[in-house]
Amino acid sequence: MTMIHPFDAATALTPQGGGRFTGRPSAEYANMAGPFGGITAATLLRAAMEHPERRGAPVALTVNFCAAIASGDFEVEARLLRGGKSTQHWQVELRQEGLGIAASALVVFGEPRQTWSHRPMQAPDVPPAAAVDPWTMPSLPAWISRYDFRFITGAPKWRAAASGAPQDARSQLWLRDAPDRPLDHLSLAALSDAFFIRLFQVRGGMAPVGTVTLTTYFFADEAAMARQGARALLGTADAKIFSGGFFDQTAELWADDGALLATSTQVVWYKE
Amino acid sequence: MTMIHPFDAATALTPQGGGRFTGRPSAEYANMAGPFGGITAATLLRAAMEHPERRGAPVALTVNFCAAIASGDFEVEARLLRGGKSTQHWQVELRQEGLGIAASALVVFGEPRQTWSHRPMQAPDVPPAAAVDPWTMPSLPAWISRYDFRFITGAPKWRAAASGAPQDARSQLWLRDAPDRPLDHLSLAALSDAFFIRLFQVRGGMAPVGTVTLTTYFFADEAAMARQGARALLGTADAKIFSGGFFDQTAELWADDGALLATSTQVVWYKE
Repeated sequence: MTMIHPFDAATALTPQGGGRFTGRPSAEYANMAGPFGGITAATLLRAAMEHPERRGAPVALTVNFCAAIASGDFEVEARLLRGGKSTQHWQVELRQEGLGIAASALVVFGEPRQTWSHRPMQAPDVPPAAAVDPWTMPSLPAWISRYDFRFITGAPKWRAAASGAPQDARSQLWLRDAPDRPLDHLSLAALSDAFFIRLFQVRGGMAPVGTVTLTTYFFADEAAMARQGARALLGTADAKIFSGGFFDQTAELWADDGALLATSTQVVWYKE
Repeated sequence: MTMIHPFDAATALTPQGGGRFTGRPSAEYANMAGPFGGITAATLLRAAMEHPERRGAPVALTVNFCAAIASGDFEVEARLLRGGKSTQHWQVELRQEGLGIAASALVVFGEPRQTWSHRPMQAPDVPPAAAVDPWTMPSLPAWISRYDFRFITGAPKWRAAASGAPQDARSQLWLRDAPDRPLDHLSLAALSDAFFIRLFQVRGGMAPVGTVTLTTYFFADEAAMARQGARALLGTADAKIFSGGFFDQTAELWADDGALLATSTQVVWYKE
C-alpha cells in the first residue's frame, strides 16, 4: 500500500485539460469556515506547477480569498499570462458551483540561477526545536493538528481574559508538517499562512476574522529544501498595524541552518 | 484653463464600457524601459476605482509586471471577481496590441469602518522634511523628477565604485509628488514603488533589474489623507534577502503626524 501524506491528499488535483483541474476540500485541513487558507494557497500554486507549460520555480504567490470554500468539488483553472526568458506569470482561479470564484491567485515562476547573494536579514538566535516543548490546545480546527508547533516566544494565550493592554504581536516558533513531510514549495506556501492570527495574539482572545489576501515570496532553492528535509522550520511573525477593520501580518520562514526560505505578508479583515 | 497634474494625466483612463478602459504611457513618468512601475500600479488601481460597480476603499493591491509597456495606447480591463458585505475582490489586466498582457493585478476594497485599533509599528524619530535637503541627481529617468526626495539616511550613491562590502539596505526619506498634489489612494499606490532599487543601494551601482511583483496595503482613511494634504510623507525602505536572481524590497509610508498610511513589498529580478 502506498501511503499518501494528508497534505498531498488535500492538495491533489485531477487534470481536466486546458489548464483546468478538479479537487475537493480535505477534512484534515478544515478551519473554522472552509479549509485552512494555507492549504488553499498550496492548491492554487499546485495547479500552476502541474500545468505542462510551467517553467521554473515559484518566486512569488499572491492569493486573494474571496469567499469561504464549501465542502464538495471545486474547479481550479491555471492560465499562463506571459512567459519570458527568465520569468513566467500565471493567474489561477478556484471556483465552486453555486458559489462562483472563491479564490484568485497571481504566481511568478523564475529560472533558478546562481547570482551574487546577500542576506541582510539574519535568523534570530533561538534554542533548537528539540529543546522546545510541542504546543497543544484542545478543541481547535482540524488543520492545527496537521502541524507540529513549538513556541519559543509569543505562544497563543487565547483563553486569557482580554486585558486592556495589547500584547506583543511577535511570535517565534519551530513548525513542521505532522506527520513529517520533506519540504517543498507547496508546503512552504501553506506554512507561510500557519502563523496564528495576530489579532488573537495581541488581544488575547478569538474574534471574527478572515484573511483577504496572502503574498508569499520564495527564496528556497532545491538544495536548501533538500538539506532541510522534514525537520522543523523556524518561523517569525509580527504585525505593524490594526486599523479600520483590517490588520497586516508579516512572517518569515527559516531553515534550521539559518537560511531564509520564504517571507510572507497578509491582510486580515476583523469585525470590531 | 484647467490645470491637470501630470500624475492625473499619466493615469487618465477613457471608459470603453464593460469594465474596459484605454490609456497611454506618459513621457513624464518614463523609466529606463517603459513607464515607472508605480504609475502602472496606480493606473490599474484607477481602472477598478472608476468602475461603476466598485464599492469601498482600497485595502490591498498586488500588481505583477509581465512585460515592459511600450509607447502607444493600452487597454485596461477591470473585472469584479466577487463582492461581499465588507469586501470586494477585483482583477485588472493591462494589454497592449502586439504585446499581450503587460501587467495583471488583484485588488481588494473594503468598507471603511471604525474599529479597535492598535499600531505596534511606530514611525522613526527623524528631522522634519523642511530640515532635510532635496536630493538631485542628473541624467535620471523622467519619473524621478515627478517626486521631491529628501533623504535622511541611505541616499543613493550609485556613482561610487562598487566596493567589496555591501552597504546598508535601509533608507529613510521624505517624499512627495512634484508639483504638489493632495494625497489619495492612487498617489499612495505610486509612492509605494518610489523607493529606489535596494540592489543599487547595497552594491553602490546600477545593474539590470526589473520588478516582477509589487504588493501595497493601504491603512490610510480619508481623514488621514485630508490631514496630510500635499505635504511630504516619510518613507522607510529595507531588504531582507538577495539570492538566486531575485531580491525583496519592503517599504512603509507614514504621514508627518506619525500615522502609518501604507506598507509595501516587492520582488525584483536581477541579472547577476
